[in-house]
Amino acid sequence: MADDIKAAAKTARQAALALSQATENQRNAALEAIAQALTANRDKILDANKRDMAAAEEMLAQGKITLPLIKRLKVDDEKLNSEIAVGVSSVAGQEDPIGKTQAATELDAGLTLYRVTVPIGVIGVVFESRPDALVQIATLCLKSGNAVMLKGGSEALHTNRALAQVMAAATAGMDGIPEGWMHLLEAREEVAGMLELHALIDLIIPRGGNELVQHVMNHTKIPVMGHADGICHVYVDKDADLDKAVRIVVDSKTQYAASCNAAETLLVHAEIAEPFFATALRELADHGVLIRGDARTRKLATNVGGLTPATDTDWSTEYLDYILSVKVVDSVAEAIAHINEYSSHHTDSIVTENQRAANRFLQGVDSASVMHNASTRFADGFRYGLGAEVGISTNRLHSRGPVGLEGLVIYKYIVTGDGHIAGDYIGESSKTFTHRKLNAVWEERER
Amino acid sequence: MADDIKAAAKTARQAALALSQATENQRNAALEAIAQALTANRDKILDANKRDMAAAEEMLAQGKITLPLIKRLKVDDEKLNSEIAVGVSSVAGQEDPIGKTQAATELDAGLTLYRVTVPIGVIGVVFESRPDALVQIATLCLKSGNAVMLKGGSEALHTNRALAQVMAAATAGMDGIPEGWMHLLEAREEVAGMLELHALIDLIIPRGGNELVQHVMNHTKIPVMGHADGICHVYVDKDADLDKAVRIVVDSKTQYAASCNAAETLLVHAEIAEPFFATALRELADHGVLIRGDARTRKLATNVGGLTPATDTDWSTEYLDYILSVKVVDSVAEAIAHINEYSSHHTDSIVTENQRAANRFLQGVDSASVMHNASTRFADGFRYGLGAEVGISTNRLHSRGPVGLEGLVIYKYIVTGDGHIAGDYIGESSKTFTHRKLNAVWEERER
Repeated sequence: MADDIKAAAKTARQAALALSQATENQRNAALEAIAQALTANRDKILDANKRDMAAAEEMLAQGKITLPLIKRLKVDDEKLNSEIAVGVSSVAGQEDPIGKTQAATELDAGLTLYRVTVPIGVIGVVFESRPDALVQIATLCLKSGNAVMLKGGSEALHTNRALAQVMAAATAGMDGIPEGWMHLLEAREEVAGMLELHALIDLIIPRGGNELVQHVMNHTKIPVMGHADGICHVYVDKDADLDKAVRIVVDSKTQYAASCNAAETLLVHAEIAEPFFATALRELADHGVLIRGDARTRKLATNVGGLTPATDTDWSTEYLDYILSVKVVDSVAEAIAHINEYSSHHTDSIVTENQRAANRFLQGVDSASVMHNASTRFADGFRYGLGAEVGISTNRLHSRGPVGLEGLVIYKYIVTGDGHIAGDYIGESSKTFTHRKLNAVWEERER
Repeated sequence: MADDIKAAAKTARQAALALSQATENQRNAALEAIAQALTANRDKILDANKRDMAAAEEMLAQGKITLPLIKRLKVDDEKLNSEIAVGVSSVAGQEDPIGKTQAATELDAGLTLYRVTVPIGVIGVVFESRPDALVQIATLCLKSGNAVMLKGGSEALHTNRALAQVMAAATAGMDGIPEGWMHLLEAREEVAGMLELHALIDLIIPRGGNELVQHVMNHTKIPVMGHADGICHVYVDKDADLDKAVRIVVDSKTQYAASCNAAETLLVHAEIAEPFFATALRELADHGVLIRGDARTRKLATNVGGLTPATDTDWSTEYLDYILSVKVVDSVAEAIAHINEYSSHHTDSIVTENQRAANRFLQGVDSASVMHNASTRFADGFRYGLGAEVGISTNRLHSRGPVGLEGLVIYKYIVTGDGHIAGDYIGESSKTFTHRKLNAVWEERER
C-alpha cells in the first residue's frame, strides 16, 4: 500500500513538471473539456451517487450518520449542471495565476532579474463528504498547473470515483496535459501514506471539520494550508451604533451558524451593555440562539432571565451551533487582549463609531481577517472577490485568510545575462550593480 | 529547561504582539540606538570575543575545529564598526516591509477590503559560529516587527552574549519596543525545546551547514525557511558561445567554492564537448579544480589525462570544494531532466546563444533561481537587490530563492463597513458585490 502511494506520488511529481509547461490555452481547454464531460456523463455520475445515497440512507436509519451529511452528499441534475459544471467553466475563465511577472530588476547593463509565478508542484487534498469539492479543488489545481492527489469521504466513494474517471477521461491525450495530473485515493490508509511523502508532495489542503484538520496537521511534515477552529468574535464598543451592532451580531451568529466564520463569542463594553443587551439578547433569542454569559452579562441582561453561565471552556469553544458566549469588558484594550488570547486568529470584528477605537482594534487584533462595522460572515473567498476558494487559512506563512488561486502558486527567479560573472563585481575597480526597478515582463513562453 | 524555553517563547509571543504595533519611526530609532551601542560598547564586545578566540585557538591546536571557523569567529574594531554597526544602520534605512497595502477592493458601497502586510510573529533562528549573523538577523526581525529567539554556535558563546546584552540594553525602555523582543538561547538542549513549540513560534530559520539545516528540518513541526543542499548546475548548450561558457563555468565553480550557489555539476552538450573541454578543463585545472567525469567526458577530454570517474553519488553531492562533476548530454531536454532529478532546486544556469533553448531551460528547470548566460553565483539577496538577506530558501511556499525583509512578513485582511451584514447579499432581490479594484491604501496607523 505504502509503495503504491509512493509510486502514485512519483507519477504526480512527473505530471506536475509536465503540467507546469502547459500553456494557458491548453489548461483552459482541458477545463472546458471537463465541464462538458461532466454534463455528458450525467447518467454515470448520478447512478454512482445513487449507490452512495442508498448506503448513506441505510446508515442514517441506523443512526450512524446525520441528515446534513446526506444533504451534502446528494448530486442531482440541477447540482451537476448548474453548480458543478458551471463552476469548472468559471475556474477556466479566471485570470491565469502562473507566468505572471511579479517584479523585474536591472541588476546591471544586460543582466536582468525577473520574479515569475509558477505552480507549487504536487498538492494533496483530504476532504469530507461533498463530492463537488473534489471537482472544485482538482480544477483549481489544474488551472494553476499543479498535480493533485485527492482523498474524499468514504460515503462518497462511488460518486468520487465516477467524477474522477470522467475528469481523467476528458483530459486524456489533450495537448500539454499529462496523464496522472490527478490521482484519487480511496482507502483511509492511503492518506496516512500520503502524509509521509514530504519529499514528493509540497502542500496538503484539508477541507473538513476540526478533527480532520487537526489529524492532518499532527501527522505530516508537509506544509498544511487551512484552519482548524474558527473561534470568531464580535466586540461591541462603547461608541457603537446599537442598531448596527445588533444587526452585525445577529448576522455573524445566525446567518450560517455551522460556518467557520460565524461568531462564537460576543464582547460588550460595560458602558453600553445594559441598553445593548435589552435589544440584542431578545433578537438573538428570537433567532433561537442560546446565550452563555459571564457574571456581569447575567447581571446586566435584565430583560432575559436565567442565562446559562459561561465557564472558561466557553471562551475557547467553537460551537458551530446556535450558542453564543458573552462577556462584558471595560475597554477596547481588554477586548483585544481577550481576542488575542482565545481567538483562533480567523476573523474578528469591532462595532464602533469611534475611528480611533476601530484603528486600535484593526491593528491590535492578530487575526487573518479583522473587520470594522461588518459581519464576520464576509470572510470568504467569493465575498472577498478572490474567485473560487481554495480554503481559509490561519497560517502565518504563504497564505492567510480566504485563499484563491494565488495560494496555489509560488515564484521562481529568472536571471538573463550575456556572459555575466560574479567575480567582476568584487574588489576594487569592479563593476557595480544598478538595481534599477523595471516594468518589464518575462513572457517568453513560446515552445 | 523545557519550561524555561516555553516561558521565554510566551514572553516573545507577547513581545511580538506589542512590537507589531510599533511605528516605523520607533523601530528605526531602536535600530539606530543598537548601531550606536555596538560601537560605544566596543571594549565589552571585543573582550568577550577574545575569550571565545582564546578557547577556539586551543581547540584548533587540538585539531577539534578548523581555521576557517576561527576566522569567522573573530570580531575586531574594523569588523564591529565597518561591517556590523554599518549593517544595522543599513537595515534601518530599508523600506518598511510592514503596513503596506498589497491590494484594496470595494466589495460594495461603503464596504472595503484591504490586504496589509504585518509581521509573522515569533521567529526562531539557529546559526553557526559567525557572531555578526546574530546582529544581522535580530535587526532584520526588529525592522519587520517580529520577536526573535536566537541560538548561536557554542564557540561564540561570550561574543553572542555580549552582543545580545548590548542590543537589549540599547533598546530597553524605548517607546514602542517591548522588553523581550529578542531572546538569546545558550544551551544546545534549548534548541530542542524551541523546535517543539509550534504553538508559540511561527518560523524557524537555520543558518549554517547542511547538517544543521537537516537536523532542524527533521526535528520540528514549525515551518522552516532555508535550504539544505546547494547542488547547482551549469549546462553548456551546443549553441553556447564558448568564451562566455568558460567564464561562467569558472566563476560559478571557483569564485567562492564553499558557497551554496557555487556549481557542483557541469553538463555539456555532446556536439561542442570536445572544443569546450579543450579550453575549459585547462582553465579549471589552473584554478585548482579537480574534475570527476562520466565516461564520455573522460573520452572527449583529450587534453587532460587521467580524470577521476564520476559515480552516481557524484550527481547528488554538494562538494563545497574545488571539485566539479562533469557529464556529457545529447540535448537540452536531457540536461533539464538531469537537473530536475539531481538538483537541490537552488540555482541552475544555461549557457547558449539559442533563445529557444534558453526559454525551454528557464521554464523547464524547477529551481528557485534559473539563469541564462550568467553565473550561478549571482543567486544572492544583495546581488538581487533585496537588501540584507534573511537567507536562501528552496521552499515552495511563502519565500523561494534569496529572501529579503519581505520573507519576514505576512498579511492580514482588513474589512471596513458601516453596518454591513452578509445576509443582505443572499437570496433574491439581494444586494450584489461590486468587487471593484481600488488604488486605496490603508494607512490609519496613528495612535
